[in-house]
Amino acid sequence: MNTRFYNIKLMPMDKGTEVIPEGELWVEGSRILYAGPASQAPGEGEQGRKPPIWDREIDGRGNLVLPGFKNAHTHSAMTFLRSFADDLPLSEWLEKQIFPMEARLQEEDIYYLSKLAVMEYLTSGITANYDMYFYPHQIARASVDCGFRTVIGGTLNNFTSSLEQEEENFVELNRFHPLIRYQFGFHAEYTTDRRLLEGLARLAGKYGAPVFCHNSETQAEVEQCLERNKATPTVFLDSLGLFAHGGGGFHCVYMSREDLDIFKKKGLWAVTNPGSNTKLASGIAPVKKMLEMGIRLAIGTDGPASNNCLDMFREMFLTTGLAKLREQDAGAVAAGKVLRMACVGGARAMGLAECDSLAAGKLADLIMIDLHQPNMQPENNPGRNLVYSGSKQNVKLTMVDGRVLYEDGRFFIGEDPEHIYRKANGIVERIVTAQG
Amino acid sequence: MNTRFYNIKLMPMDKGTEVIPEGELWVEGSRILYAGPASQAPGEGEQGRKPPIWDREIDGRGNLVLPGFKNAHTHSAMTFLRSFADDLPLSEWLEKQIFPMEARLQEEDIYYLSKLAVMEYLTSGITANYDMYFYPHQIARASVDCGFRTVIGGTLNNFTSSLEQEEENFVELNRFHPLIRYQFGFHAEYTTDRRLLEGLARLAGKYGAPVFCHNSETQAEVEQCLERNKATPTVFLDSLGLFAHGGGGFHCVYMSREDLDIFKKKGLWAVTNPGSNTKLASGIAPVKKMLEMGIRLAIGTDGPASNNCLDMFREMFLTTGLAKLREQDAGAVAAGKVLRMACVGGARAMGLAECDSLAAGKLADLIMIDLHQPNMQPENNPGRNLVYSGSKQNVKLTMVDGRVLYEDGRFFIGEDPEHIYRKANGIVERIVTAQG
Repeated sequence: MNTRFYNIKLMPMDKGTEVIPEGELWVEGSRILYAGPASQAPGEGEQGRKPPIWDREIDGRGNLVLPGFKNAHTHSAMTFLRSFADDLPLSEWLEKQIFPMEARLQEEDIYYLSKLAVMEYLTSGITANYDMYFYPHQIARASVDCGFRTVIGGTLNNFTSSLEQEEENFVELNRFHPLIRYQFGFHAEYTTDRRLLEGLARLAGKYGAPVFCHNSETQAEVEQCLERNKATPTVFLDSLGLFAHGGGGFHCVYMSREDLDIFKKKGLWAVTNPGSNTKLASGIAPVKKMLEMGIRLAIGTDGPASNNCLDMFREMFLTTGLAKLREQDAGAVAAGKVLRMACVGGARAMGLAECDSLAAGKLADLIMIDLHQPNMQPENNPGRNLVYSGSKQNVKLTMVDGRVLYEDGRFFIGEDPEHIYRKANGIVERIVTAQG
Repeated sequence: MNTRFYNIKLMPMDKGTEVIPEGELWVEGSRILYAGPASQAPGEGEQGRKPPIWDREIDGRGNLVLPGFKNAHTHSAMTFLRSFADDLPLSEWLEKQIFPMEARLQEEDIYYLSKLAVMEYLTSGITANYDMYFYPHQIARASVDCGFRTVIGGTLNNFTSSLEQEEENFVELNRFHPLIRYQFGFHAEYTTDRRLLEGLARLAGKYGAPVFCHNSETQAEVEQCLERNKATPTVFLDSLGLFAHGGGGFHCVYMSREDLDIFKKKGLWAVTNPGSNTKLASGIAPVKKMLEMGIRLAIGTDGPASNNCLDMFREMFLTTGLAKLREQDAGAVAAGKVLRMACVGGARAMGLAECDSLAAGKLADLIMIDLHQPNMQPENNPGRNLVYSGSKQNVKLTMVDGRVLYEDGRFFIGEDPEHIYRKANGIVERIVTAQG
């Protein structure tokens, strides 16, 4: 499938967030052949020249094309718990509502619940996710069947997994399909014994691979870790060698100066989840400080039980907005930085550097933003408009790996959306009935 | 125009946020004739029976119909400054960017810039706004031409208005058109001299009318008022008799116990503006406390220079989310309360009790929410879904005064959207060129 976008504004994000006002972008198969000013597109006989035929030529009508957003932390299949248990204290939410419901999930459920999340990612211009949940093979199958790109993260913990399983997943899922990657991971310090963590550090060493986990999401988590290990989660985990080959943490709300120094020194990724941290009253991450220190940042929605939506526009506004509130500084964390976290940072955090920007040779994971909408007008600054007033309603087209999966409100994921909705509602009904 | 909605879920909001699973709603002209269970709709010969002909019968396909959101505080025409000046400290933002640009506005600009905002309101399911800006007759004309409902609030201050003008506006605009109301208002304590405030209190007394103003938006504002008047803004303004016939304040972020007691005792409306308070780093309003005290609450977007978007979904999420963060309590300010602030509270704050719910005799200001979208699935709880995962993309239809003004992404406002966009961009270009 070869696609030509013309009459577009182009934000390639190879550097900064500059916009090429009259751009053109060519896709051959799954890769970008050309992205730049229309006037400089290669001619006949030149390197990177047009394919012999275009399967489709899309008149962008002056709309904005940019790299897709990357959702760097989520638990997709938790869609079944969306709006099921809200407005509850964290412990009650988790122990009385989430855990008992999760215990009744069946393997096939994960397939449909993940697909439902993929649909929502597409409506929000998200072209890849870093997913953590039970039954990773079902997650992989759901994404591949939709044509979506997923990095699956390990969820090693004391209750539902083992080191053997973690290694097997790593090996198997990294050769499952080009759209799927697997990265080592564990749930969190407070759910994973030292023996498992040391084993995982050995696995990471064996494969030279990064490790990710939930880190310092709540004050209580940090305090309990200090009691148990005489060290913060970051210091403790680093001391076990888990970050010898990189990786990072989700949430990173309560970070000591020493924690931040470790993140900086080891080049670890801090994945911020402001929607979830807000709804669960966890707190506000020190994003301004991390940016100033040069710590690498990406953004995730977290799962739909805690957020409840999977919307990068909300997360982008909150990333800068909460930083402004925390620092009492309306100048904190400029919009352009946030946009790069969502598009570029996310890709690199997830090991998807080939999807981080729009340039010849990169994978064609991109979105087209409808500027012919009142919230994008006047066109004073399309980048800031995206962060401060953008919304799912502006996502005109989402392309993953060179294929259009969502356009003008319609899904091209190989299955009728209504069938997926029926499956999701059926799963909830079955589980609630079983709960009695 | 007589319209029948059938095959809908109905959230009438006459009380609570209960949903009638198989509802029907009839509109005759600008008013609701019936709203309730399909099975109980009046038959031939009964009171409230069907009109002889339906101009249109809408199959809701199981989607959700509820009262429109009311945007209880905004400055619509500031659309021209959207994404023009962001990420700046408040004083620099206001004095170096906003004021010089505003000084170059021409009267006709307000007409198109307000229309641009009305379009965005419609995409967000907002059916009425409380607007404060220069040239109120242009605001009124823009709304009426779109078919939109607007309450215009006075902006009395030391620089651009007078008591005579305020009274003239009140009299003229309250008989301008059924879609338009005018309420007395002033900008804020710090921009309006005591003599004007006392005069406005006399006007409010003469007409038995409520008075609204910006109130306690920032800590500095409260501190300066304490220095000047030995009282907080609320205490000082109340002492002048401004709230003898009701009214309220916008923002209400820094409120003393005495301020809250006055709001409670006088039945004043606190209009919260969480998006603006976030972006300008102003702080978080004590919404949980106000709810517990029984203070009346509504929600506003504030203007597009400070927010930057006019999106009630964002404001609803932030209203509960920021309260959760402020109180460190994930149970603070339940979703149903927020939904009622946005739909019912806003209407009553604005003096539009006829638009507060869906019942026979009420004005037909309503929206239909597309539940056939991944972010609304599964349908565990449509009300919570609206607050926690709703988005403009879910607004399928917006009806004001019995007329559909927005449906499936298309506007029915008597003017080509592209013409309005061109006008808005032209205004910015003219002003920026003049700035040099």
